[in-house]
Amino acid sequence: MKVTLAVDLMGGDKAPKSTIDGIKISLNKNDEVNFLCFGSKDAILKAQTVLGNKRCQFFESKDDVTSEDKVNIAIRKKESSMSLCLKATQEGKAHASISSGNTGALMSLSKLYFRTLDGINRPAICTIIPTIESTAILLDMGANTECTPKNLLEFAMMGSAFVKGACGVANPKVGILNIGAEETKGTQLVQDSYKLFKESIISKNFTGFIEGDELHHGKVNVIVTDGFTGNVVLKTMEGSAKTMKHFLKSYLMGSILGKFSILVGFPCFRKILKKVDPNRYNGAMFLGLNGIAVKSHGSSNAQGFANAIKVAFKLAKTDINNTLKQEISKINNE
Amino acid sequence: MKVTLAVDLMGGDKAPKSTIDGIKISLNKNDEVNFLCFGSKDAILKAQTVLGNKRCQFFESKDDVTSEDKVNIAIRKKESSMSLCLKATQEGKAHASISSGNTGALMSLSKLYFRTLDGINRPAICTIIPTIESTAILLDMGANTECTPKNLLEFAMMGSAFVKGACGVANPKVGILNIGAEETKGTQLVQDSYKLFKESIISKNFTGFIEGDELHHGKVNVIVTDGFTGNVVLKTMEGSAKTMKHFLKSYLMGSILGKFSILVGFPCFRKILKKVDPNRYNGAMFLGLNGIAVKSHGSSNAQGFANAIKVAFKLAKTDINNTLKQEISKINNE
Repeated sequence: MKVTLAVDLMGGDKAPKSTIDGIKISLNKNDEVNFLCFGSKDAILKAQTVLGNKRCQFFESKDDVTSEDKVNIAIRKKESSMSLCLKATQEGKAHASISSGNTGALMSLSKLYFRTLDGINRPAICTIIPTIESTAILLDMGANTECTPKNLLEFAMMGSAFVKGACGVANPKVGILNIGAEETKGTQLVQDSYKLFKESIISKNFTGFIEGDELHHGKVNVIVTDGFTGNVVLKTMEGSAKTMKHFLKSYLMGSILGKFSILVGFPCFRKILKKVDPNRYNGAMFLGLNGIAVKSHGSSNAQGFANAIKVAFKLAKTDINNTLKQEISKINNE
Repeated sequence: MKVTLAVDLMGGDKAPKSTIDGIKISLNKNDEVNFLCFGSKDAILKAQTVLGNKRCQFFESKDDVTSEDKVNIAIRKKESSMSLCLKATQEGKAHASISSGNTGALMSLSKLYFRTLDGINRPAICTIIPTIESTAILLDMGANTECTPKNLLEFAMMGSAFVKGACGVANPKVGILNIGAEETKGTQLVQDSYKLFKESIISKNFTGFIEGDELHHGKVNVIVTDGFTGNVVLKTMEGSAKTMKHFLKSYLMGSILGKFSILVGFPCFRKILKKVDPNRYNGAMFLGLNGIAVKSHGSSNAQGFANAIKVAFKLAKTDINNTLKQEISKINNE
């Protein structure tokens, strides 16, 4: 099956260059993908020059959602590249949509166009995090800054279904992010959620609280938290990886022995940097909607955007929302 | 001036070995420090064998605060090593106290023994984080899981005074941790805090919101957040550093070229790992009390504990609380 993806060329700090170059990378690597590209007149002209018309169609947008736009403003911009991109997906012209733009606006517009899946109240943003073993996802990454225990349980259910259906983890372990392993630790939200999870249908896979320093272990596959904490955690991880890279570079490049060491171990260093590169994990999924929307990080480069495209492609190809619906109904009927 | 430090031998995952060995490291490195050691009969016997009686005095505790103890239970344990350690400091027998035990209990007992500084309602736990340039501290690290905007302002004032007085940063920049730089982003708490900070006496040093990936830059010196988020962030940083170390080790040690690369660049690798080693930044300070209490990380090793001792020594030596009082009164009178 050929997959058609709707792309918002305009969102992101380095757009439209990063989005156009990202599409270019995908076109070269993947024969099965076609694109509908949405952007300003100027962006479209650039995109046509770089990408050609063979597997891409271009649509001029009349408006633009900025990173400062509040949700109510963004929603009114019906002719923005973001809005047109989601509309095309909702109308079945594309299988999935990708944007690097304003996260809050993208979530609100996605809800507006796609509507939530049956049985889901609050869709969540979910991302795969680097782990030493197995697979781990963290949600919510920022769609819901303030949450209730019921929201967290819904995230846990969607996350479990996703990890099972899309990543092939048979019995995903679920944990709640907290500041200690003991039941008495943390905010009212996490304590109440703990009790709710213990009595819920996912209780047998619930491993309790998990702390920030255990996220990368991969022993817990679905880590749930409110969108504020999740977003801060994700960005902290990115910042730590970048800082480590900075120290590696400056200490090794600062001495002759260090430079020689890089030269000798170059293939290893390349692997390490690739393993922790935030661009590699780019492409956050909006779970819980009747349509696929993938959010690329605002600061991602072309390769990062290509990775987000890969995520959207995979979700479309595996018909993720159907899988999600089936898994959630299985959980509910257990 | 000789400094006497009261040490709780019992707290921490690797105690009393890590605490005793940590004291040993400090005794060897610093002629100006003496210790009052508090612990179980067994721990005292071990400590006496390792440390000798020259610059250490030993006191047997009859009880123990465990990591599971709720605050109300811990407070009742008047004969615990933690309690005795703080009491000795409050009575002026020691200049500062250090414990790796239960954070909540240590904060509550510290408040009980030391009382808060004039004008401070909520003491906070504060830690120095690794930065590319300058100095940055993060607070609160877990003393106050749920906060008000006024609490955050108090943290900002204490943090500024601390960074100025103890770290020599002339005009500390203050930021609020959030999930976006825009005023409209984040929870009600951070939005209301933003407004309060803008109108407050520290407004001229307030740089606005700061995101998780900017913490290590060092461009903002005092980063304030609620204790839940702060604790999660600190542990996430630790986890990321450990994971990076794991990948470095396993990729480099997994190939002959990699091994050779380590051999050649060994001094550089040692510097890098030291730079990001959580043990190096061990020793969180309780700010806002009429006495010095330093919290060592529960999982820290002997070197980490020795670093926490160094922090306590420095705080005692520089008479930090006097400095803090003066700085806060300066801020208030500006």
